[in-house]
Amino acid sequence: LFRRYRTAQEVLHKAWEMGRSDPRKIVFSAKMGLALMLISLLIYLREPFKDLSRYSVWAILTVVVVFEFSIGATLSKGLNRGIGTLSAGGLALGMAELSKLAGEWEEAFIITSIFTVGFVATYAKLYPTMKPYEYGFRVFLLTYCFIMVSGYRTGEFIETAVTRFLLIALGAAVGFGVNIGIYPIWAGEDLHNLVAKNFIGVATSLEGCVSNYLNCVEYVRVPSKILTYQASDDPLYKGYRTAVESTSQEDALLGFAIWEPPHGRYKMFNYPWKNYVKVSGSLRHCAFMVMALHGCILSEIQAPAERRQVFRNELQRVGAAGAKVLRELGIKVQKMEKLGQVDILYEVHEAAEELQNKVDRKSYLLVNSEGWEIGSRPGEPQESLNLDVDEDKHLEYKSLSEAVLDLRSVPVPKGWDDKIPAGNNGFNPEGLGYLPSNMNSTQPPGVPSDNLFRKNISWHAGLTCTHNGEPITEESKTYENASALALATFTSLLIEFVARLQHLVDSFEELSEKAKFKEPVESLETT
Amino acid sequence: LFRRYRTAQEVLHKAWEMGRSDPRKIVFSAKMGLALMLISLLIYLREPFKDLSRYSVWAILTVVVVFEFSIGATLSKGLNRGIGTLSAGGLALGMAELSKLAGEWEEAFIITSIFTVGFVATYAKLYPTMKPYEYGFRVFLLTYCFIMVSGYRTGEFIETAVTRFLLIALGAAVGFGVNIGIYPIWAGEDLHNLVAKNFIGVATSLEGCVSNYLNCVEYVRVPSKILTYQASDDPLYKGYRTAVESTSQEDALLGFAIWEPPHGRYKMFNYPWKNYVKVSGSLRHCAFMVMALHGCILSEIQAPAERRQVFRNELQRVGAAGAKVLRELGIKVQKMEKLGQVDILYEVHEAAEELQNKVDRKSYLLVNSEGWEIGSRPGEPQESLNLDVDEDKHLEYKSLSEAVLDLRSVPVPKGWDDKIPAGNNGFNPEGLGYLPSNMNSTQPPGVPSDNLFRKNISWHAGLTCTHNGEPITEESKTYENASALALATFTSLLIEFVARLQHLVDSFEELSEKAKFKEPVESLETT
Repeated sequence: LFRRYRTAQEVLHKAWEMGRSDPRKIVFSAKMGLALMLISLLIYLREPFKDLSRYSVWAILTVVVVFEFSIGATLSKGLNRGIGTLSAGGLALGMAELSKLAGEWEEAFIITSIFTVGFVATYAKLYPTMKPYEYGFRVFLLTYCFIMVSGYRTGEFIETAVTRFLLIALGAAVGFGVNIGIYPIWAGEDLHNLVAKNFIGVATSLEGCVSNYLNCVEYVRVPSKILTYQASDDPLYKGYRTAVESTSQEDALLGFAIWEPPHGRYKMFNYPWKNYVKVSGSLRHCAFMVMALHGCILSEIQAPAERRQVFRNELQRVGAAGAKVLRELGIKVQKMEKLGQVDILYEVHEAAEELQNKVDRKSYLLVNSEGWEIGSRPGEPQESLNLDVDEDKHLEYKSLSEAVLDLRSVPVPKGWDDKIPAGNNGFNPEGLGYLPSNMNSTQPPGVPSDNLFRKNISWHAGLTCTHNGEPITEESKTYENASALALATFTSLLIEFVARLQHLVDSFEELSEKAKFKEPVESLETT
Repeated sequence: LFRRYRTAQEVLHKAWEMGRSDPRKIVFSAKMGLALMLISLLIYLREPFKDLSRYSVWAILTVVVVFEFSIGATLSKGLNRGIGTLSAGGLALGMAELSKLAGEWEEAFIITSIFTVGFVATYAKLYPTMKPYEYGFRVFLLTYCFIMVSGYRTGEFIETAVTRFLLIALGAAVGFGVNIGIYPIWAGEDLHNLVAKNFIGVATSLEGCVSNYLNCVEYVRVPSKILTYQASDDPLYKGYRTAVESTSQEDALLGFAIWEPPHGRYKMFNYPWKNYVKVSGSLRHCAFMVMALHGCILSEIQAPAERRQVFRNELQRVGAAGAKVLRELGIKVQKMEKLGQVDILYEVHEAAEELQNKVDRKSYLLVNSEGWEIGSRPGEPQESLNLDVDEDKHLEYKSLSEAVLDLRSVPVPKGWDDKIPAGNNGFNPEGLGYLPSNMNSTQPPGVPSDNLFRKNISWHAGLTCTHNGEPITEESKTYENASALALATFTSLLIEFVARLQHLVDSFEELSEKAKFKEPVESLETT
């Protein structure tokens, strides 16, 4: 008994939670109860017309069937029901007239016509573009069979049809009246909010991906739900997955929204609901890049932690700017504001350019030079030194000894070794050379303070490699060696993400034009 | 009139096409017609029992409503209808008894109970996990209201309920009998085929991506349908999109398949349909990588054509081996065969390793050295020469003069220049150096026949860069410079795809264990 009490308590708690998170559900349920109450009352009042009330079930049936959550769905179902009933009624009347001509074959004619109509209507229903009218076909079949069968018995085709139609009209009137008249729930509004919410979700995922990547957050064990693309609570994953997965929901809402009359903020005939879905599709196209970025975190092939730090500022800036663009667009969709004069992509393009320039200057960090058949990267120390002096004019300069001090004073965190591929531990110059400058947070990262030091090591490294001769090819190293390239992948996926933002902005502008979004407040002030 | 004739012709043609591509649709339509015919006949035969036939609409309604395409859907709808009707009937009877106690408040009591039941049932229906039982709730509401209202008027609660139930049972019997007895269509079979088909689709996409990438196929203008993730005829896109998009379809089929009794090849209670969806989820996880590979083709940032050729053989081998694994798994799913002793991933892992080794040896091709702050790549010619001799022991050797001849004899196709980033045209060594060896198809691609030649150029290039001093940073170059890294991205995405195959094989093995797939024929022969 106690356990039952607990279960009941849990159910009530869940019900309460659902109501709190979406109060429209409570309103809708109350509306449904009200509509049923009204139709019952009407049936009571009409008691004198016994003949009519015999078919009272039709009125109740219509209310129950037509009463959908959103107005669009209600209207589309009602229309389906109306057209299905009317056309079936018309056809049935015609067929009944014909059947009279058949004389003694009347029964056979009726039965055959039922088979034929059943076959054709069902076959037509299965055609893909007929999907939204599925319910109409069902009503059509039901009405046709019912009229043919009952009409044959009583000989009162017209009366049956008219009575049914009146009661259906009554049910529909009550259903529509209550559902539209009291606190209507619009599918279009839902679609609008869904699209705006997707923007925020993708933005959160993007930020999370970049920051987790820079902080070398790794999954101890990748949740199998992610590996099989099921819903999961992982916040990074949830954001983009929701945006990617919402296609079917959007299509359903779009199918309903186009039935809705102009209302609220959407005061326009032929409101461009399709463009909301298009914007969401473009967002999805961007979200796939965020998904690929997340793939870099999920991957077994992990870039060495300290190399990521070199690009830290730039990556973070692009991530933050990209997320900001998404958020801003999301808010603009929500508020139905145009973009205005400001180039929303300016900052993110700047950031991407900076990242790209950094990559150009430091792309040697993105490859392992050990195995190169043209020899390891830095060739002759003197040559390198000359180059360095050239370079260091523009850069903060630090002497060799200082760099060595740096290396000694900062303990190399041992825990990271696991993430640094084995091949790099021994003699890879950057792996060691960059650790100090990044561990020591007083220096701006990316400044090659230990340039000379690194050069010397790498020269030795080059020699070591040369002396070793044969490249080391162990089976297990296959994936490990890809680690440096993994950073390159992350970087170029991020840049590709930025490139895709352009399409997103384009489709947003198309939407804002077609839907006549208002001008932003800021731009009005300046002009 | 002529136009109408044409339209009719088109409609007929489409209908014919649909029937030819899926004859089950014709069979199903005929079954529907047959069921309707049978129920009409039964109603005729029962003409003596006027009282019963008064409610004949219930039998027809049940047939029309319960008759779904697949057996699972039919059973689940039938069960919903049955439970909904029975529980509503029971509740209504109890309430009617109670209402008698209310005396003169009877009407008010009934109306209030209708509101309360309507509210609670609708609210419960909106709870997400209740979605599959949505239809049951509708039937419940309808039955409850109908019995309360009609019962009040005639005072014959029990008779109404029993008559209705008998007719519903009759309709259900006819519906089930025809739908299950004649050529049953199983949702489980559909799910099985859908999953197997997705494998083939992704395999085709993968092959297409790799070959298009190597052949430098570019979209003159990326179809806006791809940019907004809508269905499109593009064969590369279609393959993986179908696999990615099939989630909702799979969920629906799974929801029906679990209702189906053991049948045909699925002779087992609690057949692991869930694992099919899981395998499909893992496949989707791989498909996302194919999608990212396709993204490399869609991207504005394109790797120079001749560098792609360097990795041609390896990329092609990985692509072919990966597609082969997918195809084989797809066929095994289709045939319901276990993997057997063979390591299905052996070949693709070998290929990925080879690609990885090549990348290790040639990753200098994946970066642009111009802007490096540690100086351009090749340092001192003597050093390079030494290294080259070391390397060339293992490689086909060609003298400098031969290489120069190569370069002169083969015209550099001017059209390619557009794809080679501007920065590379002038002095990037590989851009020029590799062209001959790949244009001249008598040589195996990837063999650095012009090693020495390239070295000399690149040395000059290095100097040029040094003398230039400042790195060139134009705004428009941002994306162009990413071009070399784009190849690195493509490569590591492909390797990540291979890594993900492991999860796919794991979930396939789980499925094959749980669903008791048969041992493959080959393995039986060897043991």
